[in-house]
Amino acid sequence: MTSPKTARADTGKPLGEFGRIDRYFRPLASGFPGARGLADDAAVFGVPPDQELVVTTDAMVAGVHFFPDDAPGDIAAKLLRTNLSDLAAMGAAPYAYTLVTALPKTVGEDWLAGFAAGLGEDQARFGIALAGGDSVSTSGPITLSVTAFGLVPKGGAVPRWGGRPGDRVYVTGSIGDAALGLRIAYGTLEVADDSARAALLGRLRRPDPRTTLGPRLVGLATGCLDVSDGLVADLGHLCEESGCAAVLESRRVPLSNAARSVIGDDPVRFAMALTGGDDYELLFTAAEDAAPALAALSAETGVPVTAIGHLLDGPAGEVTVTDARGRVLDLPTRGWDHF
Amino acid sequence: MTSPKTARADTGKPLGEFGRIDRYFRPLASGFPGARGLADDAAVFGVPPDQELVVTTDAMVAGVHFFPDDAPGDIAAKLLRTNLSDLAAMGAAPYAYTLVTALPKTVGEDWLAGFAAGLGEDQARFGIALAGGDSVSTSGPITLSVTAFGLVPKGGAVPRWGGRPGDRVYVTGSIGDAALGLRIAYGTLEVADDSARAALLGRLRRPDPRTTLGPRLVGLATGCLDVSDGLVADLGHLCEESGCAAVLESRRVPLSNAARSVIGDDPVRFAMALTGGDDYELLFTAAEDAAPALAALSAETGVPVTAIGHLLDGPAGEVTVTDARGRVLDLPTRGWDHF
Repeated sequence: MTSPKTARADTGKPLGEFGRIDRYFRPLASGFPGARGLADDAAVFGVPPDQELVVTTDAMVAGVHFFPDDAPGDIAAKLLRTNLSDLAAMGAAPYAYTLVTALPKTVGEDWLAGFAAGLGEDQARFGIALAGGDSVSTSGPITLSVTAFGLVPKGGAVPRWGGRPGDRVYVTGSIGDAALGLRIAYGTLEVADDSARAALLGRLRRPDPRTTLGPRLVGLATGCLDVSDGLVADLGHLCEESGCAAVLESRRVPLSNAARSVIGDDPVRFAMALTGGDDYELLFTAAEDAAPALAALSAETGVPVTAIGHLLDGPAGEVTVTDARGRVLDLPTRGWDHF
Repeated sequence: MTSPKTARADTGKPLGEFGRIDRYFRPLASGFPGARGLADDAAVFGVPPDQELVVTTDAMVAGVHFFPDDAPGDIAAKLLRTNLSDLAAMGAAPYAYTLVTALPKTVGEDWLAGFAAGLGEDQARFGIALAGGDSVSTSGPITLSVTAFGLVPKGGAVPRWGGRPGDRVYVTGSIGDAALGLRIAYGTLEVADDSARAALLGRLRRPDPRTTLGPRLVGLATGCLDVSDGLVADLGHLCEESGCAAVLESRRVPLSNAARSVIGDDPVRFAMALTGGDDYELLFTAAEDAAPALAALSAETGVPVTAIGHLLDGPAGEVTVTDARGRVLDLPTRGWDHF
C-alpha cells in the first residue's frame, strides 16, 4: 500500500488505486494509530505482554460466497463478520483487520461507497478499525479477503481440540436460519410469510458473530469453533480434534421462530437446518459444572446458550444425532465442503 | 480454516479444500507453533514486549501481476518476496505469514505442488513459516494474497515520512532490471545476449527482498520504502510524506551489468530503468554522518548501498532528476499506477 498523495498527482486519473484508497479506505483506518494513515509500507502495533494475538483470514468470491448483485453493504458485513466469528470462536476480542480487494473494472464508485459504508458501520458496531490492505484489479469476479486480529489472554485461546468425554455441548443463538435463507435466495424454498422470509435472508446476509460472548468463554469452554460448515459437521470437527465422539439431541437444537415456522413437521427441512452452514454461532463444550456460569453469562450478554448434547468416549469425530424419542436420526449429509 | 481430517472423511472427494490444505499447506505450517497445525479457527502468537508487529498485505492476480503461465514456484516466490520487501522497508525481520488462494477449478495438483514447493523454499531462505490462511475457488483468474508479519524493536519502525532536508538518498542493489525484464517478457524489448536476458527476467520473477539489511536500518535510516512503483515515483512518495524535495543524480543510480549492456546509450531505456517498477530494492534516507556506518553495513551484509542524491527544502514530493552534467533530465513519466 503506497501513499496516495504523490501518486494521484502523477497519474492524473480521477480515482485510480490511490484515489480510491484515499476516499474510501483511509477514513476507515483513522481510528487505529498502527495503520499509520495507510501512508506507510505496513501497519505497526504492539501486543500487551499478558495477551496474545489471534489471526484469522477469510476470503469471499462473487458467485461462490455471495451473489454478485447482493448489496455491497451486506457483502462488507458478511466479510467482516465471518472473520470476527473466527476470532470469537478462539475467545478473542476484535482488535483490527486488513483488507484485500480484487475488483473488476466494472465496479464503480457507488459499489465502493456502499461497501465502505458497510465496513464503517460494522467497525463501529464491533469496535475495530482498518489497519492496512491492498487493492488490485481483476478480470474475474469481485474477490475479497480480510485478515482479522484479535486479542486473547496469554494461553487462553479456546482450541477446537479441548473437548473431553462427559463435557456438555452448547450452541449459541439459533441454528439453520442461514441454510434456509440460502434456499430462499436460490429460489428453491418458497416462504409465503414475509417476515419469516426477511428474517432468514437477514441471517444469511448479516450473521451475528458472538464477539461479546466469545471472549467470556476463556477458562470456561473446553473446546470451541464457529458453525460454518453445518452444525453436525462442525461438531464432528470438534470431536475429531478432541479425540472423542458426541451425541447431538436434535430436539434440543435451538430454532428461531422463523425457522420453526418454515420447517414445521418437514424432516427434510429440519435436516437442512442441522446440516446447513453459515450460521456463525459458537459451538462449544464445557464441563458439566460450568452450567450455572454459562446460564449467568447468557443472561448477562443476552446471547442464548443452549445445551444440545454431550461428548463421550468413542471413535474420534463420530456424531450420533438422536430424534425426540432418542432414536438415531439418519441424515442425508453431515455438512458441506465450501471448496 | 477448518480441520481437514473429519471433513475429508465427510466429502469423499479425493482432494477438496481440506485435502489440498492437508497435503500442500499443512507441511508449510509445521515450523510455527502459533499456526496450531492449521487445525483451529485462527493462529495465535505473542509479540515480545520490547518489540512490535509489522503487518503488510500484497495481492497478485494472474494477467495483472504475473503471467498465467509463469512457473508456479516463481509466482510463489514473487508473492512472498514482495511482502517481505515491505517488511524490510519498515526495518522489520520476517516472522510469519498467512495465505489466501482463490483458484479456478482448472488449477491442478501439479500447479499446487509447484506453488507449495516455491513457498517452502522461500520459507527456508527467509526464515518464516505459514501461520494460517484460506482457500477458495473462483470462476476468474488465479488470485493470491499474503499477509506478512515481521518484528521490529518498539518504536523503531522506519517510516516513509522521516526524511529531512540535507539527508542523503540511498538505494540498495541495482535499479531497472525488473522494468527491462518486463519488456522482455512482453516481447517489446529484444535482448540478444542470453545471460543478460536471463538475469533481467530473473530479477523480474524473483526479486531479492532486503530482509537482512532492512532491520539493520533501524536507528540509521530516517525514511525508507521499497521500490515498487519506480525509483523516481517512489522517491516522490518518500519526499511527499516527508514534506521536502529531492535531487536524484541519475549518473549515480546503480545498474547491473545486464542492465548496463541493454541500456547502452539509449536514453529511453535509461528512463525505463529510472521509472520502471518492481525492483524491490530499499530506497532510504539517512543523515550525512551515517555514511561510514552504511558503508560498513553494506560490506558486512554484502548488499550494495549507493548514494544517489539528497533531500532539500522545497515543494513536498518534488523530485529533480539530473543527468551526468548536472542538467535536469526530462522523463516521460515518473512511475506507474498498478491499479
